Parts: sequence; C-alpha cells; structure tokens
Amino acid sequence: MYGSSRWRISDSARRQMTMPRGMEVVVPRGFSFSTAEAAIKKPGRKDLALIFSEKEAVISGVFTTNEVKAAPVRIDMERIRLGKGQAIVANSGNANACTGERGIRDALELSGMVASSIGVKADRVFICSTGVIGTPLPMERITQKIPELINGMGRSSIDDAATAIMTTDTFPKIAGRVIEIGKVRVHIAGMCKGAGMISPDMATMLCFLMTDALIERKALSHALRDAVDDSFNRITVDGERSTNDTVLAMANGMAGNRVIRDGSRAFRTFASGLSEVTEELSRLIVRDGEGATKLVEIIIKNAKSRGDAEKAAFNIANSLLVKTAIYGNDPNWGRIMAVLGYSGIVVQEDTCDISIGRVKVCRKGIATGRDSEAADMLKADEVRIVVDLHIGNASSKVLTCDLTEEYVRTNAEYRT
Amino acid sequence: MYGSSRWRISDSARRQMTMPRGMEVVVPRGFSFSTAEAAIKKPGRKDLALIFSEKEAVISGVFTTNEVKAAPVRIDMERIRLGKGQAIVANSGNANACTGERGIRDALELSGMVASSIGVKADRVFICSTGVIGTPLPMERITQKIPELINGMGRSSIDDAATAIMTTDTFPKIAGRVIEIGKVRVHIAGMCKGAGMISPDMATMLCFLMTDALIERKALSHALRDAVDDSFNRITVDGERSTNDTVLAMANGMAGNRVIRDGSRAFRTFASGLSEVTEELSRLIVRDGEGATKLVEIIIKNAKSRGDAEKAAFNIANSLLVKTAIYGNDPNWGRIMAVLGYSGIVVQEDTCDISIGRVKVCRKGIATGRDSEAADMLKADEVRIVVDLHIGNASSKVLTCDLTEEYVRTNAEYRT
Repeated sequence: MYGSSRWRISDSARRQMTMPRGMEVVVPRGFSFSTAEAAIKKPGRKDLALIFSEKEAVISGVFTTNEVKAAPVRIDMERIRLGKGQAIVANSGNANACTGERGIRDALELSGMVASSIGVKADRVFICSTGVIGTPLPMERITQKIPELINGMGRSSIDDAATAIMTTDTFPKIAGRVIEIGKVRVHIAGMCKGAGMISPDMATMLCFLMTDALIERKALSHALRDAVDDSFNRITVDGERSTNDTVLAMANGMAGNRVIRDGSRAFRTFASGLSEVTEELSRLIVRDGEGATKLVEIIIKNAKSRGDAEKAAFNIANSLLVKTAIYGNDPNWGRIMAVLGYSGIVVQEDTCDISIGRVKVCRKGIATGRDSEAADMLKADEVRIVVDLHIGNASSKVLTCDLTEEYVRTNAEYRT
Repeated sequence: MYGSSRWRISDSARRQMTMPRGMEVVVPRGFSFSTAEAAIKKPGRKDLALIFSEKEAVISGVFTTNEVKAAPVRIDMERIRLGKGQAIVANSGNANACTGERGIRDALELSGMVASSIGVKADRVFICSTGVIGTPLPMERITQKIPELINGMGRSSIDDAATAIMTTDTFPKIAGRVIEIGKVRVHIAGMCKGAGMISPDMATMLCFLMTDALIERKALSHALRDAVDDSFNRITVDGERSTNDTVLAMANGMAGNRVIRDGSRAFRTFASGLSEVTEELSRLIVRDGEGATKLVEIIIKNAKSRGDAEKAAFNIANSLLVKTAIYGNDPNWGRIMAVLGYSGIVVQEDTCDISIGRVKVCRKGIATGRDSEAADMLKADEVRIVVDLHIGNASSKVLTCDLTEEYVRTNAEYRT
C-alpha cells in the first residue's frame, strides 16, 4: 500500500560509538516511514514523522507519570486500551501540553486526518508531540503537510523519522535486534528522542518500538513494562520529568512466527531482545544529554535495601555538585559523601568505599590519596562511579551525564 | 581583655543593595574579632576567624541534618548541650569533613589551643570549618597562626571576620538590628557565608549570631529555632545539603537589660529582631548564590496543604529547567507546570494561575499570551513568581536564584 516491506539499514546506527560493532538496525517487516517539514517551531528541518504498519498491530504503551499530561498523551492513553494500532504521527517543536481543550481538539483533528487519509479507524492512530510547552500547535501549517506526509510513505528511512522527532538532541537515536523464535527471524527496532527533561519515571522522551513478531498483546505489554523499567526508568539527565513522555510498541505479526505467549520460552527471548533495544536507546539518550560530555554510571552496592540503593544512586546522579565535578575532571568524592548523608538512607560514614573508574578514592569514609589517578579516570568519556556502603546487600545502577555550561546555555535559550 | 567593647559600623553592610537604607550593623557589646592567614586552601587571603565574647555567653546552635557530619559539627553538637560559650574559631578552605578520627583529633587540638590561650575551658570554644571535603586540615600551618589570631583580638572588624569565612562567596554577609527591651538598647548582629551547596534543611553555611541581650538559654534556643525555620530553611541554591552547616547564637548579657524569658513580651521583641537578622542574611546568601544573577522568590498560594505548598515551592526552586529559563529571561511557565505535575502534590491543570512579576502568563492552565511582557519582568535582578493552585488555602514562599554557566564553571573548577 504505502511502500512494501523492505529491510533498511540505518546509517546513523553505524556511526554511534555505543552501537556494538557490526550491529545494524533492520526495519521490521511491514513498517514504513514518512517525514515532512511543517515549520512547527521554525523552518529548516523535518518536524513531522509518520510510522505506518501495513498490517494492524497490537500496541502497548507506557506514559508519563506527570500529573500534567499533554493532550496527545491523554488521547493515546485512552486509545491504548483497545490495544490496536496501525500508525503513529509525531511532531517535534511543540509539546501540545498546557493547551487546554484546544490542545485536545487539535490532536484529535490531526490524528483524524491521518486516519482517514490512510483509511483506518481514528483510534488506530496514535499521536505524539514534543517541544515547547504551553503554545498551541500551528494547526494550519501542520494540516497543510498531512497530504505530503501520507503520499511520502516509504520514502523516508528510520533515521529520517528519528531525526524528525529530535528537539535538542544532537543525533538521531535508533537501535535494533534480530532474534529467532522457533527458527523464524523476528525483528525489533526502535527510535527515540531525549536530550533534556530526562528523569525517571521515564525520561522526557518519545520512543517508538516496532516489531514484526506475532505476539499476544498481554505478552507485549509485559515485555514492554519490564524493558522500560530496566532502561528508561534508570536514567536521569536533570531530574526533570516531562508532560509528554511516551513509549509505544507495535507488533504487527508479519514475521510469521508462532504466536508468542506470556511466560513462554519464546516470550523470554522476545523480552530480552526488546530490553536490549530499550537499553541501547536509553544509553544513547544519556550520551546525548543536553550539553553532556560524559556518560556516567552510578553503581551503589551493599545498601540496606533496594529502595536505599535507588535513592542513593538517583540522588548522586542528580547532584549538581557531583555532575559539575565530573565535568571538571575533579574526583571530589566528598560531594558524593555529602549526598549519601542527606539522601535519607541508612549510611555509616566509616564503612563507605568510593571508586572512580578503577581507582578507590575513599576507603572507610576517608581519602586514599589517589585523587590524581582518579582525575585521569574522569577524562574518559564513559565514567563509572561505584559506592560500596557495606551495610546490606542491595544494589542499584543509574545512568547519567555531567552538567556543563552548555546545558545551561541550551536551556536558557531554548525558546529563543 | 582582648579589646574593649566597641561599636563598630560595617562597611560592606552599606554597600549591599539588599540592606535597608540607613541600616547599619552595630557590633553588640563585648564581642570582638580577629583574623589570620593560614593558607589553608591557598595563600593570599585571611582564612581563620575568631569571635570572642568578653563575658561568657549562653549559646544555642542548629546543625546540619546531613548524616555525614564534619568533625567540628560533631564536637560542637556535644558542647552545645552545656549551653555556654565564649569563643568561636572558624576556618574556610577546608571542611574537615570525611576525615575520620584524625579530623576529630585536629578539631579538638585547635579548639583546645584557642581555649588555653584565652584562658577558658575547652568546651566554651566552638569550632567551625567550611571548604573542601575529605582533606585533612593543614594543622601545622593553622597552629602556627593561633598566637597571631589570639594577639590580634579586637583588631579585626565584623566585616573582616565575615570575609575570612567566605568560600566561593563574592561578598561578606553581615546584618544587624537594634531593639529595645524595657528601654535598654539591645544589639543583635550576625555574619554568615553561603554560596554553594545551599538547600534546606539549612543551607551549606556557617552563621554566627551575637547579641548583648541578657536572655535565658531556653528562650534563646526557641528564638533561634524559629528564626532559622523562617530564613535559612526557606532558601535553596542548588538543592544540596552540606556536612558542615552550623548556626550558632551567643548572648552575653552585656546590654544590661532585664533577663528575657521565653514567651514574654520582651521575648517576642527579641525573637522578631533575631528573625529579621537571619532573614536578611539568608537573602544575602541567595543573592550571592554561586553564579547567580537574580534573586528569585517562589510563592505558592492556595495549595491543598502546607506540605504540598512547600514541596511545590522547593521543586520549582530546584528545577534546573526553571532556573535556566529565568537566567535566559524566558518566561517558560510550561516548565513550572511540568514541575507541579511531577511534584506529587494535589494539582489540577485547569485551575493553575502563574504570574511572573506583575504579569499573569498562565490562567487556568493555559497561556495568556503575555510572554513578552513577562520576559521584561525577568530582566530585573529580583524576580517574583507566584503560582496560585486554587485548590486549598495553604501557602509557602522559598527564595532561590537562577542557574548560570558560572555556577557550572565555579563547581567544575572548585578544587583546582
């Protein structure tokens, strides 16, 4: 109908350092893309993307926990109950959040136009927006571009679509895996955008996952929830949570595998493939955190409880003083101790060990005198900080990035 | 003994814009100051200060709630139980935190030296440190300077002492009030340092309050607790809480007033004078927040509960996206809505009003279209943001500052 099922290989995928060597993103059967320029925030770039599945897919979603939800989020949360989807239309440059009834009307109108153009029911079309909050969508400019978007189906690559949904992202983010379900090759691919307002639960982000797996909706939802918990819910750029976070997963069954049921062996294979994709995407988001120069892994070991481990990890990851010290290659572990102390967790100063990279900078709460070695570790673009509390056996890991002048500039000038 | 009781007028006090016109800081009777250069972090500035009261004073204190407490904090918390004090010795450049048993020994040795030099019991001397965490004090350099510190008593002004305790502060912070208790003039003066790691409960700060009031210790403690709650516990620069926060209040009774008892009319006069001093000091801390260009008041009105109002106010005040928008003169109220949404408070999008200065930018959750007027409001160096939730009748106010590239630079390069 709108471009046959093709296997396309992503260009940007190969360029990303974090992408395992030799890994390529293959678009699952039956999915195609289209993009258009509607000059939503300003002209000069594609800012509309359409993802289309030849066959109706089962669809699952995870949405922002923010009480203030954008209009498209509210509509998608309603539609997702049916569990069926065939297209996603997304725009960057405007979040259509805090836009009242008008925002809802606009989102309904847009998704309705797309649905009727491609000949599916309105509730099979999902709509997502990202960008500035509080400004109504420039509907005239967008609706003018809908025909172009529909006619162009299949003419854009997954990279093009991932580029069109970018806001302050500096590169498009895609990832994919090929798995085998009963000797049938099944493809999972995803794209996302991130950059700022990134924090659990769920980063400020849109993520669209596609698979040609034949899978029960319940199993898809289960796999998606687990995958999001272990990936997007474990990253933070700035501790902010947006009004628009959305992860959608569509499975159109075109791989021809035997149906995947929840809890089966095939399910575990699928779930682990999906998790790999979301983990890779979440890593790309942090790597591209606004102004970030470093990817930072915060690992808490031997906390009293899982809750304590998570609280400590996220508080360290969100500490401005820790993030700026990392940026400045300063192994200022005292700031980490200070965070541990105010986190409200069970902590004993004289049992804490802190390592930066392979260098232990603090043993039993006091300096080891190895700061200059640790400073060298901080010069890498991936940094691991391990805090061993020696007080229990719970652990946690969180990904974050450093805080730079560029973050401040980006966000001070975001709307100008 | 070490310089007679003099009334000195502060120079820096007059220079501060936030200081009410004509207001002067008068040093309470019997208090004198001394400073010395021990090159604790690096040479080139005074980094030791001594505050001495001719007469033994009653003393109260409020200390950091951080579980990781600096050695001097632990010692002072022990000593404060007796409620008597005659001197405070403070250093900048090194926090003596995360320094283990050695840190305790060093702090005991220093305060012991000061106590024996001035001829008072060791537990009448309080010790405070601020600066880098995790590095032992350079004891040799400091102890060498103790004789100079003792001999110089009375030769430094309150400004000099306030300057010696500065870390990344750009100006010394002092404030004072003169009150009348039964026709007797009573003086209250204070100095503090702040700048970074500023958050409730209590900013990362040292604050020393002096008064010549004759007051029962219980009454002093009561007044101090209330004053701190309404001032230092209502400011945030970066959401960090330090290992060293200390507020000490000494009252030496030399004004000759009738003793002030808790709950009396005289107590209310004293307490309100003390509150004015701590409020002025806390305002100076925020104004001098690391890299700050603006003082920002966040006011939440008509929240469901006091807890909700405080949570909303502090979350907005600590939001990187809000703080950077204010820096960039961008009335991006959508970011405030997003914070309200994730704060976990009772909020209805369609009842929220947001004003920036005198301009309402958001009415009932949607834009009023007055962004350019609001942008002008943001160009002032004091900005008030009022959020009316229209959902209850609780309110809260928090002071904060904007977030700039300079904050990042300051903290990336702090130890270099």
